[in-house]
Amino acid sequence: MDFLSSNANWIAVVISIIGVGFALYTRQWILAQESGDEKMNRIAGAIQKGASAFLSTEYRYIAILGGIVAIVLLILSAVPGSGMSPWTAVCFVAGALASTVAGYIGMNVAVRANVRTTAAAAISLNKGLRVAFASGTVMGTMVVSLALLGVSMLYLILRQIYPADADPQNVTRAAGALAGFGFGGTSVAIFARVGGGIFTKAADVGADLVGKTEAGIPEDDPRNPAVIADNVGDNVGDVAGMGSDLFESYASSIIAAIAIASLGTAGIAAEKVGAAQAFPILVAAAGLLIGMGCTYLVRTKEEASQESLLGSLRLGVYSASGLVALAILVLGLALDLGIGVVIATISGLVAGVAIGYATEYFTSDIYKPTRILAESSVSGPAIVIIRGLAVGMESTAAPVLIVVLATLVAVGSAGLYGVAMAAVGMLATLGITLATDAYGPVADNAGGIAEMAGLGEHVRERTDALDSLGNTTAATGKGFAIGSAVMTALALISAFVSATGINPQVSILDPHLPTGLMIGAMLPFIFSSLTMLAVGKAAQEIVVEVRRQFKEIPGLMEGKADPDYEACVGISTRSAIRQMLLPGIIAVAVPAGIALLVVLGRGNELARYVDIYTLVGVLLGSLISAFMLAVMMANAGGAWDNAKKYIERGHLGGKRSDAHKATVVGDTVGDPFKDTSGPSLNILLKLLAIVSLVIAPLLATNPPF
Amino acid sequence: MDFLSSNANWIAVVISIIGVGFALYTRQWILAQESGDEKMNRIAGAIQKGASAFLSTEYRYIAILGGIVAIVLLILSAVPGSGMSPWTAVCFVAGALASTVAGYIGMNVAVRANVRTTAAAAISLNKGLRVAFASGTVMGTMVVSLALLGVSMLYLILRQIYPADADPQNVTRAAGALAGFGFGGTSVAIFARVGGGIFTKAADVGADLVGKTEAGIPEDDPRNPAVIADNVGDNVGDVAGMGSDLFESYASSIIAAIAIASLGTAGIAAEKVGAAQAFPILVAAAGLLIGMGCTYLVRTKEEASQESLLGSLRLGVYSASGLVALAILVLGLALDLGIGVVIATISGLVAGVAIGYATEYFTSDIYKPTRILAESSVSGPAIVIIRGLAVGMESTAAPVLIVVLATLVAVGSAGLYGVAMAAVGMLATLGITLATDAYGPVADNAGGIAEMAGLGEHVRERTDALDSLGNTTAATGKGFAIGSAVMTALALISAFVSATGINPQVSILDPHLPTGLMIGAMLPFIFSSLTMLAVGKAAQEIVVEVRRQFKEIPGLMEGKADPDYEACVGISTRSAIRQMLLPGIIAVAVPAGIALLVVLGRGNELARYVDIYTLVGVLLGSLISAFMLAVMMANAGGAWDNAKKYIERGHLGGKRSDAHKATVVGDTVGDPFKDTSGPSLNILLKLLAIVSLVIAPLLATNPPF
Repeated sequence: MDFLSSNANWIAVVISIIGVGFALYTRQWILAQESGDEKMNRIAGAIQKGASAFLSTEYRYIAILGGIVAIVLLILSAVPGSGMSPWTAVCFVAGALASTVAGYIGMNVAVRANVRTTAAAAISLNKGLRVAFASGTVMGTMVVSLALLGVSMLYLILRQIYPADADPQNVTRAAGALAGFGFGGTSVAIFARVGGGIFTKAADVGADLVGKTEAGIPEDDPRNPAVIADNVGDNVGDVAGMGSDLFESYASSIIAAIAIASLGTAGIAAEKVGAAQAFPILVAAAGLLIGMGCTYLVRTKEEASQESLLGSLRLGVYSASGLVALAILVLGLALDLGIGVVIATISGLVAGVAIGYATEYFTSDIYKPTRILAESSVSGPAIVIIRGLAVGMESTAAPVLIVVLATLVAVGSAGLYGVAMAAVGMLATLGITLATDAYGPVADNAGGIAEMAGLGEHVRERTDALDSLGNTTAATGKGFAIGSAVMTALALISAFVSATGINPQVSILDPHLPTGLMIGAMLPFIFSSLTMLAVGKAAQEIVVEVRRQFKEIPGLMEGKADPDYEACVGISTRSAIRQMLLPGIIAVAVPAGIALLVVLGRGNELARYVDIYTLVGVLLGSLISAFMLAVMMANAGGAWDNAKKYIERGHLGGKRSDAHKATVVGDTVGDPFKDTSGPSLNILLKLLAIVSLVIAPLLATNPPF
Repeated sequence: MDFLSSNANWIAVVISIIGVGFALYTRQWILAQESGDEKMNRIAGAIQKGASAFLSTEYRYIAILGGIVAIVLLILSAVPGSGMSPWTAVCFVAGALASTVAGYIGMNVAVRANVRTTAAAAISLNKGLRVAFASGTVMGTMVVSLALLGVSMLYLILRQIYPADADPQNVTRAAGALAGFGFGGTSVAIFARVGGGIFTKAADVGADLVGKTEAGIPEDDPRNPAVIADNVGDNVGDVAGMGSDLFESYASSIIAAIAIASLGTAGIAAEKVGAAQAFPILVAAAGLLIGMGCTYLVRTKEEASQESLLGSLRLGVYSASGLVALAILVLGLALDLGIGVVIATISGLVAGVAIGYATEYFTSDIYKPTRILAESSVSGPAIVIIRGLAVGMESTAAPVLIVVLATLVAVGSAGLYGVAMAAVGMLATLGITLATDAYGPVADNAGGIAEMAGLGEHVRERTDALDSLGNTTAATGKGFAIGSAVMTALALISAFVSATGINPQVSILDPHLPTGLMIGAMLPFIFSSLTMLAVGKAAQEIVVEVRRQFKEIPGLMEGKADPDYEACVGISTRSAIRQMLLPGIIAVAVPAGIALLVVLGRGNELARYVDIYTLVGVLLGSLISAFMLAVMMANAGGAWDNAKKYIERGHLGGKRSDAHKATVVGDTVGDPFKDTSGPSLNILLKLLAIVSLVIAPLLATNPPF
């Protein structure tokens, strides 16, 4: 249908504006809910203030660094013959802004929904679930709507500026500039996901070390000055961080599909290029609409078990997946793209669901791996660590095989374009899957507020049930985030190779590819080392501050005086952002530095050592290495966490047994694994690929390549 | 010089026979040393018996499985048009035999040198050092001599059978058959290194768990039934295991260089092929001669500090390196191969030394990383684990950059042939570097015997000094083993690509390479997961047996009855070999399975999903992934070990402090890291490459490739 194909962007613009409206409407609904008594509101107010403090510092840094990057992009585009469009900088700023706005609104709602979830849980479990899930829905819908709105609007504009019929090169220019949007999103993600990851665990570990361990006061005790920072951290990491990570994957996968469709290497017939470019946008738009509808399916009855609570969320997600598959089929046929493209897209969708399942198997205590891990704890902490690492390593097999299978099916049925469409398919239901993720920290905070405000046992029980559900969705969400990052990066790398116009044939007998692979494989290890140590350093600063307050604020321990929560939030913020700079710089500098060497080496001796295939090697090497490490870290961390919780529920001696102590060691190691270093790798692997794609014209213009 | 070039193999045969003679002469010298009193000899006898028991079981398995593989190779060569030579099977058997004999003699001497080292240390430190180092010399010289003897003799024979002037294809046939020798060595290595790695740590952990922890008796207490198994394990892991690992690298690097020189892809002029084939053999022969000479430089004075002891070993190794560099220069010029080839070979030699240095920096407590790790132990075991993993991850940078640099220099100055020669250069001083490694367990055992036999404090002090030196050389030896495995595997992969005659150009836009890379990168994680868990399982069986003996043997705890040492050795042996089968099978089955799919897919639909580039991807992916993991595991393990020892020497509260307990957790995690899983990865990455090279003719013969 020609109508669909030529109006895809307009359709997407309309649907994403509906999405924004839906998110804002849901936000109003949440704000209209009961927010409990004065004490609850005082605590929630502190969390809100802390979150704002973090966000405003983060945004200041993003504005400065983003401004610098935008200027560099403008300068590069002004270099004669660079081949880069000045619109790259515009798209970059738009991507950064869109991701920022989505993150801001999501966080803003989450830190208001937490206390309302507590209040709602005082009435009924279903009410609590609905408020918390509505908050996740705001985040999920906002991320998807703004990403889609940005991509489709910018592409409309770019096609006006670079009309395809005026110059065949214009297609490439438009696609290249559009990549700037993804790059903008990534720049926010590195702050939100890496910085946020450091913040959340530094606050968590710092609060525990000095509160639970030294002062002997319970978790979530309002006397602990770091407790608010800990609660803020949950939102910073799992709402803003996860959101920005997936914003980027979502936008980049669509951009990669559009780019590949345009670039001609995908072997798409000329008359079908328009339809092939429209398809990812329409699939995304359909997914957004369907996702919004399916959020209404998420509800539960009183006294629901964990299984039935999980079932409620799954009903929503699986219904959305089924309907999106149908939409893919209908759209693919309507656009006359052939069944191959449909199969490729659905293979990604299925892969996303399968990775979620596999993750659950390795991290949930209802399955063998975590059970055995918990049982090993009677042999002490060292065995818990060895077993946990082994579980994490073993768990790489399933996602790797799933991604490999999806890739092969996608390429087999629709070529290179199929890979990008598989990524789009995997992320098509993002609105609702992200809602189930971003729901978690709200439920977690709700429990904390119930504890601090001293609410009754039955409220705590309900919030605990909701929180526990959040832990499960957090683990599967991480698996999904990694899988989609890998698929997206694969698509971006293909787009990069196509965009440079280099010969895609690389000789294995040259040193370029193998040496690039080695350097690339090393980066995630260096990156993880830095992020793990960052948590420790930042936590140490919190410990010092909390000790100071305990000593210097009279009446604090007796509950007569309030601690200075803001000081801890401020320290976490500054420390997190300081610590994320080095890994962030490495992630940008390495591809940029190699690209520079490639340019410098044109036509001279240097090219024997470094050429563009070195960069391709770095991209592929970091992709596979980060994939393995991220899965290992996320799943080992999840398994340790749940093994600990399994024992806390009274198995193997329960709390305060030696077995429990051993799992606490595992869980403490697992914290930076699953919440800082592991998720940060998603950003690393996409960042390397998108930076390369953005600078692809620089590498493409000169004749030697 | 034509003489050198045409008689290289004969020269190597003569020098390696001299090497065997030198090793046997040194063996006689050791056996002629004082062996102490009756009690010492009783203990040493038990260790000897245990070692024999392990070896004979291992050899039985090797004979059976090796026989099966040899038959499969014969059958494959009989398939019409397979292109494989029946001599591959002969070379395979020869390689397995040579590695076995080297390992047997090395172990046989080591378990006799231990008690003689104890007796010699009772006289003087220098005497102790000389006996222990002589034992290492036997192993080092034996490994190098037999590997060189095998390669040069077989190549002499193969050139008679496949005369180059009769058929140009004969060069390929001879080189392909020769690869069987490396494959034979690998098959032994997988038993000795993987099985041995499991044995040594299972015995160690099992003995500690039930002895030190449960029964409260000291380490190396003769009442502990697992104590002999622990001592046997030191030799099994660090003498036989390390030896077989490096036997394989050594032989394979020479074979790869010969193969690449023959195959024509290296761009070597036809008239220089003979010289290029002679060069690796002559470099190896020169290295063997020089290494033997330099062992005489290793001696020390009484009351030597650790630094001066280390200096004694270094004097030997560095002198050898310098002289070998000179020999490389002279030989390269004499053979008229040009300065480029000389630079390539020396770059490998330098890289080997540099990797040793880098390893020492990350694992020795005189440098910052291990110091900081030790200091972090006051914050508890979880922080020790996080920091140790971070140190391990960080430490990947140096070896990666060194290997990348060496590869680039080698390729830049001598093309593909340069890579293989860099590996040969790195391993040229193996005789003496392996001597410094294999010396370690002898010194360790000597200390154990001194303890069990109740010798005086001054003897224990001297053996402790020797043991501590051994720990340092063990860490650097591991770095060297990984680095050389990577260089060798790189050369093997190049040889494989050349041997198949496929187009070395692979398209990045096809799914084959990326999916292969992912599967390859996953294998080391699965392999490590299996080997780490294997240690735990095997240790558990030891614990059960020791508990049984404590209960059932009357008078054991009072020292009135002897424990049944053999039962523990038997359990470790059987358990280790059982546990190594699955990882071993995976390592062979994956490349073989993919090769089968490649063959099955010829000319049909399947080839769209799997082709020979998938296999290339698997090889490269596993190479880089195993490289990172192996370095991380070895160095994290080394750092944990030395952080613990640093505290035991009285820092940060010394033994029995909480800090010490935290580092014990780190060290326990580090044990399977550095002694089982990490070193096993060397075998995995070489095995995948050599299996592929051996079956290369199968993949090459049919027209589609």
